[in-house]
Amino acid sequence: MLGKKMTIAELATTLGAVGIDFSEGVEEITHVATIQEAGPGSVSFIANSHYEKFLETTKASAVIVSEKFVVPTRGSSGSQAESLSYPALIRVHDAYASFAKTLEIFNPRKNVFGSGIHPTAVISATAVIAGNTTVMAHAFIGENVTIGEQCIIHPNVVIYDGAVIGNRVVIGAGTAIGYDGFGFARVEDGSYLKVPQIGNVIIEDDVEIGANCTIDRATVSHTIIRKGVKLDNLIHIAHNVDIGENTVIAAQTGISGSTKIGKNNMIAGQVGMIGHIETADNVIIIAQSGVSKSITKSGTYFGSPAKEHRTALKIEGVIRSLPELVERVAKLEQQHEK
Amino acid sequence: MLGKKMTIAELATTLGAVGIDFSEGVEEITHVATIQEAGPGSVSFIANSHYEKFLETTKASAVIVSEKFVVPTRGSSGSQAESLSYPALIRVHDAYASFAKTLEIFNPRKNVFGSGIHPTAVISATAVIAGNTTVMAHAFIGENVTIGEQCIIHPNVVIYDGAVIGNRVVIGAGTAIGYDGFGFARVEDGSYLKVPQIGNVIIEDDVEIGANCTIDRATVSHTIIRKGVKLDNLIHIAHNVDIGENTVIAAQTGISGSTKIGKNNMIAGQVGMIGHIETADNVIIIAQSGVSKSITKSGTYFGSPAKEHRTALKIEGVIRSLPELVERVAKLEQQHEK
Amino acid sequence: MLGKKMTIAELATTLGAVGIDFSEGVEEITHVATIQEAGPGSVSFIANSHYEKFLETTKASAVIVSEKFVVPTRGSSGSQAESLSYPALIRVHDAYASFAKTLEIFNPRKNVFGSGIHPTAVISATAVIAGNTTVMAHAFIGENVTIGEQCIIHPNVVIYDGAVIGNRVVIGAGTAIGYDGFGFARVEDGSYLKVPQIGNVIIEDDVEIGANCTIDRATVSHTIIRKGVKLDNLIHIAHNVDIGENTVIAAQTGISGSTKIGKNNMIAGQVGMIGHIETADNVIIIAQSGVSKSITKSGTYFGSPAKEHRTALKIEGVIRSLPELVERVAKLEQQHEK
Repeated sequence: MLGKKMTIAELATTLGAVGIDFSEGVEEITHVATIQEAGPGSVSFIANSHYEKFLETTKASAVIVSEKFVVPTRGSSGSQAESLSYPALIRVHDAYASFAKTLEIFNPRKNVFGSGIHPTAVISATAVIAGNTTVMAHAFIGENVTIGEQCIIHPNVVIYDGAVIGNRVVIGAGTAIGYDGFGFARVEDGSYLKVPQIGNVIIEDDVEIGANCTIDRATVSHTIIRKGVKLDNLIHIAHNVDIGENTVIAAQTGISGSTKIGKNNMIAGQVGMIGHIETADNVIIIAQSGVSKSITKSGTYFGSPAKEHRTALKIEGVIRSLPELVERVAKLEQQHEK
Repeated sequence: MLGKKMTIAELATTLGAVGIDFSEGVEEITHVATIQEAGPGSVSFIANSHYEKFLETTKASAVIVSEKFVVPTRGSSGSQAESLSYPALIRVHDAYASFAKTLEIFNPRKNVFGSGIHPTAVISATAVIAGNTTVMAHAFIGENVTIGEQCIIHPNVVIYDGAVIGNRVVIGAGTAIGYDGFGFARVEDGSYLKVPQIGNVIIEDDVEIGANCTIDRATVSHTIIRKGVKLDNLIHIAHNVDIGENTVIAAQTGISGSTKIGKNNMIAGQVGMIGHIETADNVIIIAQSGVSKSITKSGTYFGSPAKEHRTALKIEGVIRSLPELVERVAKLEQQHEK
Repeated sequence: MLGKKMTIAELATTLGAVGIDFSEGVEEITHVATIQEAGPGSVSFIANSHYEKFLETTKASAVIVSEKFVVPTRGSSGSQAESLSYPALIRVHDAYASFAKTLEIFNPRKNVFGSGIHPTAVISATAVIAGNTTVMAHAFIGENVTIGEQCIIHPNVVIYDGAVIGNRVVIGAGTAIGYDGFGFARVEDGSYLKVPQIGNVIIEDDVEIGANCTIDRATVSHTIIRKGVKLDNLIHIAHNVDIGENTVIAAQTGISGSTKIGKNNMIAGQVGMIGHIETADNVIIIAQSGVSKSITKSGTYFGSPAKEHRTALKIEGVIRSLPELVERVAKLEQQHEK
């Protein structure tokens, strides 16, 4: 379709591969495909052991794998004399990153979003937007917002007054940046007094935010999404939260007010974190966890309330065998009564 | 209001009812109401035992119930000689489906959404939209999107390039179809390389999707929502997910990348499913469950991580009595020390 | 910036403070700041013990605290002779409410949203909107909607036909009010019949709703959000739900159909509630809880399924020590076999 062609050997060189198995590398590659659907002329990848089973049957000409990849023993499909042949295996340091590069080579990102500011976008006269940034249809950009270079502001994004957005920032459809934080003080008759939210949101360079997220403005001071952070869809970031560099957060996670996430955290989907806590750098939090106190040590955490992963797994193992434990206790009690 | 009138007997015939209790069926019905608020001339329904208690006091002229419905014994409200009388009970095979039909009879769906393409919608010149499909205000439809017949695309819906939408599809306000999947490969300095997302989204016929959902495009290949699927609001469907025919999913559930859901699944609200797994057909997953591995057998599952429902209930029962179990063990220990 | 100035004593009087510690109150205050970032001339507050540690080092001229606030003992920072001095402590009945008032004094809410109806909003000719209500860009307001006085309808809000909105209501960006409830009746071939949703949404006075929420219309009758309710972002309220006065709900919580929440409930984030249940007044539900049956007694609840908080804490304590309990049982078994 796009006419890009290169041999397996050329692709391997481009990716800095450590070697090629099962091939001289002369075959031509014309496109990228999933390992299940791949046909001749395509390159695919395996970065997850779930997909190794397709290696035997894939029609891909080449498959990108880790340098450490162990070719699975052939299963039930027959004798060694069989004519089945493996695709070329391009061995690389990081199969997933090399796959990303390969996609970029065969499908250079065409700007399907147009450029400039769509005429239906509503932009305050006091907003400052770099010339090579794209603002798509029906976006709203409030007073005194600044947006850097090469950003893409998707359709229906709302950026409230005072937000400061860096360079190469992508904000997905329908996301609201800088809506008032959720601050209400209960008064004596049981009703609530709104706490004015006079802070703003700062989004640093190279941040990518998914669709239909909400990043609230600070009460006072700033809600900060630091350089390189990647947020999936439907994420809630409350007022005064601070998310450290290169942290990634999966869909539907919510971070409560004033919590400070370290650098290089990996937070899975549907996680909840209470307010006013911190996490260390290099923390991994497994899906659906509820983090109720600060995490001061790098590591993997799981559960609601979240515990160290190894502890959580041990507890989960015991929980699964609890009915049996009850029977063991009952038996001991019977024996004792005798 | 709409002037539709029919007798109880006529309605029963229209619904294919198996019989009418407590009435000759000659009374006229003019409208539908909840059982609590119903007045004379109205028809209501009971499809959930929570509402049986209102049967004695409702002013409805008729109530649609299951053919198996057992009239509850009169409670504290007095003697058998009392003058209270039950409404007509229209006994049908499926009370909820018959109620749906009754609503349709008395309140034929008026198109409150207008028709055609609203002038504020932004639609790519390369998009192809069937003539009798409605596109509402401020929707955005990207390049090469195709949309079939009799669809309703609600306000602020965003459909990105390449999506293929079938016939009679409804997409709720603010939903984003085909935003980039969440794919980033970590590189050596700790930052992330974006994995281009070059696939698309396919939505088959008769799918209904709620408001503020996100259905991401595939990395390569397709994210597929198959015929008859119904999705509630605020649902996240990640890249390369495949949802089987007639599966229903309740609000705030998230399905991670490349997971394949079987046919006729019923997935409750706030469920999370990890990526790269599958479910069998006819699986029921209870609210807030976390599904961490493939479900290969039809049945009901619950918990985080999800277990077979019966196992989960047994474990939950033991958990509730854990403090007591600890005391029993302590007592055994004391007895042993003596 | 805004030029507002007052002395500490004047502020204390305005707040109805019970007293001032460590100061004569003559210093001038010009702005509000967080306790960590405050400089001379600023006032801050402590309403959460997490922030007491900053009292020793803050550069704030004054800090608003509770009348019951106990000044923490000085830590490692040195001898009593040290020259460090505390800021003025303005002691008040409710530190958080007084902080809200102070923010209002120094940052009177400027209407950054403009007023009137933005020309890009799409509004049905049959909608009735009070003259001093603001409707922002790209909002959609359907047939026969009524909206009271002094409301703010944020960008991209969608309000479907028939909704009734009171006075001083705020609806955040991207929220959908009155989308069809999720009602489908399964029919014999496994497909689903849509249950027409002919009810509406009623939102009473002084309600504030966050961004990207979904409040579905009733099947029949009304979905009701009562006076003074405050909803955070990304909340799902299903059809026929009724939320009692002055109840607050944090982000990403979902309430299933026909559930009735009492008055003055405080429901934390990511909570799920099944349908057709009720809660009493003055109920507190902790984050991520799953409420599976009615709560008939005021109190605090936690867990999935939710239990009384004290019970839940006791169980959680036992769960953490389960591996040890298993060892104790194994030891008893060994001793018995001897």
